[in-house]
Amino acid sequence: MTKQDVDTRGTDAPRPAIVLVSGGLDSATCLAIARAEGHRCHALSFQYGQRHHAELNAARKVAAQLGAVEHRVMQIDLGAFGGSALTDTSIAVPEDGASGATIPVTYVPARNTVFLAFALAWAEVLQAHDIFIGVNAVDYSGYPDCRPEFIDAFARMANLATREGIEGREPLRIRTPLIDLRKAEIISRGAALGVDFGTTVSCYQADEQGRACGRCDSCRLRAAGFEAAGVPDPTVYR
Amino acid sequence: MTKQDVDTRGTDAPRPAIVLVSGGLDSATCLAIARAEGHRCHALSFQYGQRHHAELNAARKVAAQLGAVEHRVMQIDLGAFGGSALTDTSIAVPEDGASGATIPVTYVPARNTVFLAFALAWAEVLQAHDIFIGVNAVDYSGYPDCRPEFIDAFARMANLATREGIEGREPLRIRTPLIDLRKAEIISRGAALGVDFGTTVSCYQADEQGRACGRCDSCRLRAAGFEAAGVPDPTVYR
Repeated sequence: MTKQDVDTRGTDAPRPAIVLVSGGLDSATCLAIARAEGHRCHALSFQYGQRHHAELNAARKVAAQLGAVEHRVMQIDLGAFGGSALTDTSIAVPEDGASGATIPVTYVPARNTVFLAFALAWAEVLQAHDIFIGVNAVDYSGYPDCRPEFIDAFARMANLATREGIEGREPLRIRTPLIDLRKAEIISRGAALGVDFGTTVSCYQADEQGRACGRCDSCRLRAAGFEAAGVPDPTVYR
Repeated sequence: MTKQDVDTRGTDAPRPAIVLVSGGLDSATCLAIARAEGHRCHALSFQYGQRHHAELNAARKVAAQLGAVEHRVMQIDLGAFGGSALTDTSIAVPEDGASGATIPVTYVPARNTVFLAFALAWAEVLQAHDIFIGVNAVDYSGYPDCRPEFIDAFARMANLATREGIEGREPLRIRTPLIDLRKAEIISRGAALGVDFGTTVSCYQADEQGRACGRCDSCRLRAAGFEAAGVPDPTVYR
């Protein structure tokens, strides 16, 4: 926690923050960072029609382990619109390790926009000025809604969307502490903050026990990250 | 339908559009305008924790009457966050007709951001480039997310959030044909396009049969609009 991160405006009460928690290692590290900054963390996850529940079970454990004051799971049916391998079992998750110029079929249309919109609604009610999201634009799958220019545009919109935007108090910030980090750096940072990566699930097609496939894009990025960080990889493969 | 609104890029197929339909008279008129432009309209409504269902029943009828090709109702629990008289029955809907400098308690935090985020997800799957929303910044309740600057910022964000944003094809537009109209002008426009206003429900606290209170902000704006437009007011009061 750096000195600048501490609220020095006349109160010692922890400042509330919304933290999006998926159950993966990035958002777990993001929550650990928000806690290390002294925030009172309200964790938010989504049952959005994804293929498996292992991720949400992991999110519940992560929120508890890392000291969130509460954890809510919103039920939304993004799967109703289709268009993604993560919500439509008729579209196969790629396992060929081909990363590339085009956006992969695991992209869920407008997912981060929807997640951040709910986080914004909750932030407004709680009068929180920080929303943490563990997006990363380095070792990632090429999704448009993980890029810094998207996050900046969302923050700008958010400050016009809300009561705060009209009444002109403190701006709302979309906090992306991982956005410029390599996967290995995220793992090192999380390890230093005591994240139990054994709880987290990154696999796009984990089984109900949370065991990973080892072949999808997300598994490949995760395994290479542990290797590069020199941190023991606790992932259980099926 | 003006000449510019017609798609002239080599196809006569109707272009898809997402239209947010609440069941009120503004969104009904907005749907009628989208249809008059020749769009194939996909209507979207939300069961978001609002006080009454009369609005959604009206939305279903409006979508059918005005020729939407389909109508979906997403279930989302914005009420879980609280903070609004429209989703929290412990907060009274004001009936004193005082409009003013502050944002009223009927404001639902980040509602239009959430609605537009879902519309964006659907638009991306359908490859629609137009999202219609019946917001109005003239005769309205002073909600921050009805202002043109919010809509512009959302559109900018949306074009960075999506596949289209990266792959650089046609931009997505947030269409707000009512934004600069007075309530009376909206009513005149809707009447000219054949909207059956008797189907629509505007009241913040309608009963289950859709009968209006006649006292809330929304009822007052609506009644004054019919009066000013010289259009017979079909509203049924309880």
